[in-house]
Order: sequence, then structure tokens, then C-alpha cells
Amino acid sequence: MTFTLHPNLQSKVFVCSLPLCEILLENNFYYPWIFLIPRVENVSKILDLSKNEQAQLFLELEIAQKIIWDTFKPDQLNVAAIGNKTPQLHIHVIGRYVNDPAWPSTVWDYDSKICYPIEVLQERTSFLKIKFEESMACL
Amino acid sequence: MTFTLHPNLQSKVFVCSLPLCEILLENNFYYPWIFLIPRVENVSKILDLSKNEQAQLFLELEIAQKIIWDTFKPDQLNVAAIGNKTPQLHIHVIGRYVNDPAWPSTVWDYDSKICYPIEVLQERTSFLKIKFEESMACL
Repeated sequence: MTFTLHPNLQSKVFVCSLPLCEILLENNFYYPWIFLIPRVENVSKILDLSKNEQAQLFLELEIAQKIIWDTFKPDQLNVAAIGNKTPQLHIHVIGRYVNDPAWPSTVWDYDSKICYPIEVLQERTSFLKIKFEESMACL
Repeated sequence: MTFTLHPNLQSKVFVCSLPLCEILLENNFYYPWIFLIPRVENVSKILDLSKNEQAQLFLELEIAQKIIWDTFKPDQLNVAAIGNKTPQLHIHVIGRYVNDPAWPSTVWDYDSKICYPIEVLQERTSFLKIKFEESMACL
């Protein structure tokens, strides 16, 4: 398999590999924000995936939404495939809070961020990895 | 059925009704931009839909993406469920062009818009309605 992450996604934090997608974490303490990136070459939008790949994406996307919702108890979930600046298909799943700094706007045009303290980042990444493994084992 | 559109969505232009979703058009000449709104009460995020409703949503969403892509030949498709300001589940499908006024940013924090001339709006709405009917007939 010759899948390679787009350079803009290589700075994200690896969480785990699902059957179709890589799960990465945005290093931004303001929001629980993950990405699902199908390991398929040359796809820039959902429509570029085969029917089977789309079905698998939606299954993994449902798991990702449940984990973010149940773990971090946000007020809303933003789910989006945009790809204007990074034309490799990646789906954002972002827990949003009514008191987060970008609310009620979207996060994409709000540049301010703070990185996780390193211990928190390691803890959050490990915790998410376990949650995804548990969810996949229940399928 | 007691489904009622959120007031923020009532200003959008009705295109047609699919088995699950209402299809509405944003009256903004800059982008081919439609909404899928499941006719289900009290859902603010995809996760609030049942498994069957989610499967139907993804089927109708695939049709919507194909229609926007094939008809308007944009450079990218943005697909998103946000709902921070309008907490009734609605999925955006937006054709984006590298020379549109918001590119490469997202459209949500870019306020500028121009309405369609009324004849163009009627023509586009009718055309989209036919495309959706044709697509549904092929299932």
C-alpha cells in the first residue's frame, strides 16, 4: 500500500488505525477535534470513494462521533469534509461548546489555538486509542 | 407528522422532498449550495438519527453530492453538519471553485453574498428538482 499522508496532515497526532481510516488528533486544547483519513490514494472528496469504502467510512464516522460525544460531552458536534486547503480526503469531527472561543462560528477561520500540555496530549491520545479499540471490538 | 423547519431555514428556497430529507437551496449566486434536512423532530446532529435514518441520509447525501458535482462542475465539494447557530440537523453540500470569493476559506464565516436573479433562481430550482427526481427513480 502506497498511502501517504498529505504534508498538512503530518503535523497532527496519530491516535490509531481503523480498517479504513487513520485517526488523528488536532493538537488544540480548545476543542476535542479528530480527523478520519481514509487510507486510499488520490481521493479528495467523499464521492471519490467506492460504495464499499463509503459504507465503511460512515461506520467509522459513527463510532468517532459517539466517542467524542460520550467522552467529552460537548454541546454540539461539527462533522465536515472540506479539503479546500488540504486536498486529501479528511473528515473533521469536532466537539463544540457554547463557551469555546470560536462559538458559534466554525473553527476553520478562527486561528487562535493552544497546544495540549504534553502529559495531557499523551493521556488523551492513549485514552482515545483505547476507546476506538473497544468500539471496533464490539462490531 | 409534525415536522417544522427551524426559522433560520425557512428563508431557504424549497427544491423538493426526498424520502427522508427536504432539499433546500441557498439563495447565493456565488456557490451551488444546497441543504439536506431530515424530516425528523428534535435532531440536532447526525448521531441523533436512528441507524436506518442515517443509512437513508447517506444515500440521499450521495445523490446530492453527485448532482452538485455533475451539474455545476466545481473544483471541490464541501459537505458539513455544523448546527451551532441553527440546532436543527441540516447537511450542507456546497460546490466550491478556486476563483469563488471565499476560496480557500469556508463559506460560513464569509458574509458576502449576491442573490440569484429571479429567473435564474426559478430555473435552477426546477432543474435541481428534475435531477433529484431522476436520481431517485434510478434507485
